[in-house]
Order: sequence, then C-alpha cells, then structure tokens
Amino acid sequence: MIDLPQVVKEAVSVLGKLPGVGEKSALRMVTAMTKWRLEDLQKFSKATGSLVNLNECEECGMWTDEKICSLCLDPKRADANVLCVVEQVSDLLAIEKSGQFKGRFLVLGGVLNPLLGIGPDQLRINKLLDIVGLHKTQVVVLALNPSIEGDATCAYIKHVLPNEISVERIGFGMPIGGSLEYLDPMTIGKALENRKSF
Amino acid sequence: MIDLPQVVKEAVSVLGKLPGVGEKSALRMVTAMTKWRLEDLQKFSKATGSLVNLNECEECGMWTDEKICSLCLDPKRADANVLCVVEQVSDLLAIEKSGQFKGRFLVLGGVLNPLLGIGPDQLRINKLLDIVGLHKTQVVVLALNPSIEGDATCAYIKHVLPNEISVERIGFGMPIGGSLEYLDPMTIGKALENRKSF
Repeated sequence: MIDLPQVVKEAVSVLGKLPGVGEKSALRMVTAMTKWRLEDLQKFSKATGSLVNLNECEECGMWTDEKICSLCLDPKRADANVLCVVEQVSDLLAIEKSGQFKGRFLVLGGVLNPLLGIGPDQLRINKLLDIVGLHKTQVVVLALNPSIEGDATCAYIKHVLPNEISVERIGFGMPIGGSLEYLDPMTIGKALENRKSF
Repeated sequence: MIDLPQVVKEAVSVLGKLPGVGEKSALRMVTAMTKWRLEDLQKFSKATGSLVNLNECEECGMWTDEKICSLCLDPKRADANVLCVVEQVSDLLAIEKSGQFKGRFLVLGGVLNPLLGIGPDQLRINKLLDIVGLHKTQVVVLALNPSIEGDATCAYIKHVLPNEISVERIGFGMPIGGSLEYLDPMTIGKALENRKSF
C-alpha cells in the first residue's frame, strides 16, 4: 500500500472515530473534502471544534445555549408530573419529534456499563432523584434502548426511586410499517407478550 | 421540533456535507462528538482543517507531501509506457491495492459534466497530453467508472490523444464473489459481451 501524506492519515484517523464511519468511508470523506472550497473546509473545522462550547441544561441535560433549556422552562411541561428518562439527547429529540409525550425529560448521559467503567456516578442518576423530589414526579417513563445494559439500568433506576413512584418502561413490539416476515424472534416474542384486546 | 442550539445546527450542517452523511447521521455524529474528550475534539477539528495544506503531485495529481509523488519518482514505474487514467485519488489507491498495475497514473480530478460546468479545462486533460508526450506513453488505460459522464470522458480522451497511442478501457463484467442471481441486467449484458475462451 502506498504511504499516504501525514495530513491525509490524520484526517482519515479522526473521521474514522465518527459513529458508522470506517477507514474506507473516512478515505471517501477525505477525497470529497479535498475538492471543497477553502472556506467550506475552514467552516467545517470551526463548526465541529465549536462543539466544545456546547452547554447542557442544568436540569435535564439537553443541549442548550442557556443555563436551563426551553423544555424545562416551558410552563406547560414544567409542572407535568411525568418524567421520561432517555440515554442521550438524540433519543430525546426522537421522542419529541413523535409529538406524543408532553412531560419532562431527563438525559441520563449513557447506561450502566461496568466493563467500560460507567457506574451510577458517571450518569445523571443523582439529578434524576433531585428532579423527582423537586417536581413531585408521579410517573417515571424509562425510554432506554432494549439491551443488557439498558435493562440493567432500568432495574437500577427502579431500585433507587422511592416506592410511591410508578416506574414504567416504553412498550416493545412490532414497529409500524414493519413486516413480520423480517422481524427477529425476540421482537416477535415481545409483540406476542404485549398483545392488547382489539 | 425543538430549536437546537446554534453550535449543534452548524455542526450538523457541515457534517451533513460529507458523502454518505444525511441529517440523521450528522446528528448521530454530533451526539457522539459531545461525549469526546476536549483534546479529541480539538484534534478532529485541526486534522480536518489541515487538509487545506494537502498537496497534489505536479505530475499525476496524487496526494503528496512533496512536489512530485513517490509513484512518479519510482524508477520501476517512471519509464513504464502504460498510463492509467483515474477520476480521483481514491480510485488510484484502489487499483494500487490490487497490485495488478505497474505503470504510471494520472488523476483526472473528475469527469466531464456540462451540467455541473465541468469541461476539459477543469480536468487535468492538458497534463495528460503533456505526460503522454513526455514519457512516450504507448498505452493509455481508462479506468473511469461506467456512467454517462465516465463514458463521455473516455470518448473525449480517445479523441484528443494522438492516433498512434493505444487507448483501452478496463474490462466490465461480473465481480469476483458476485452472484448472477443478484447482478443487474446491464452488468450481465457486459459479462456476456466480454466473455473469453476458457
């Protein structure tokens, strides 16, 4: 293999750290970027570097320009006693896009993962307990992804929350527009388990 | 939809300009990047911005740290009278990886595309003619992708090259490891057309 210039190697290496980008895609990106105008390349570099300045809402962990985000300040939500717990901001955005949830949010910042050294202290578990106390939350909806770590995190949160709070997990089943034929057995199992009177 | 902070919007916008990255993937990338350590984010920004300094070989257009790249300076290649014309550097790298070509290269920098305003002057066509004259090239192998623009560019190059030069195009047919069942009709047609005595 040809020895590529150092600038190319470094760009491939950093782009390859993005999710879903391997060495081949990174090289494709570099190829495209070499054709960009100078100002576009500078804009790219500046905009990505500026993510350092991104602020998290002190209440819920959502990205914001202020101390407290617009969701937390929204009076129609502020007094809602339903709190939805998500792993990361993009999950919050996905739920918000559905328009089906009108309560408050809490961004956990990850899920418990002992192998990666992520324990309760690395997550916003304490903040969750604060908020639940402060806003007299009655229902906590766990919207964590179904995985071993997600399941364990749900169990942990249920354990640390006061008993009088109703803890629920989002429903699992067949996705709308899905096809039974292509669905994995685990999901079909969940869909059968979660059937409802019709 | 929630109004995202300006830094996020800008980062999503610039990342979305990368090939194969849409708004959704860009948001996923931003989510991942917000979890990076400060120095990793700065490294990313710097390494991508440094692509401005990337130099092209004066002879063939390959990426290089020098004026002339190592491929052009390689004595085993330098006097080879076969010249392979590719659209972009990543195509050159792919061919080089196969280890099956030992001649010289020329990176065209694109293909003719009147709709995008890309004419012969935007490509390294003049360089191609210079090199062919300078190195007494006898065979030009056109390794441009099969597309309307690629085909037109091949026809144009054939037209402008001196008549005594043998102009060839890489073979089209079934890819190794492919399955006839899933092959598109155009490729099957080409594979039948290009059959060889066995």
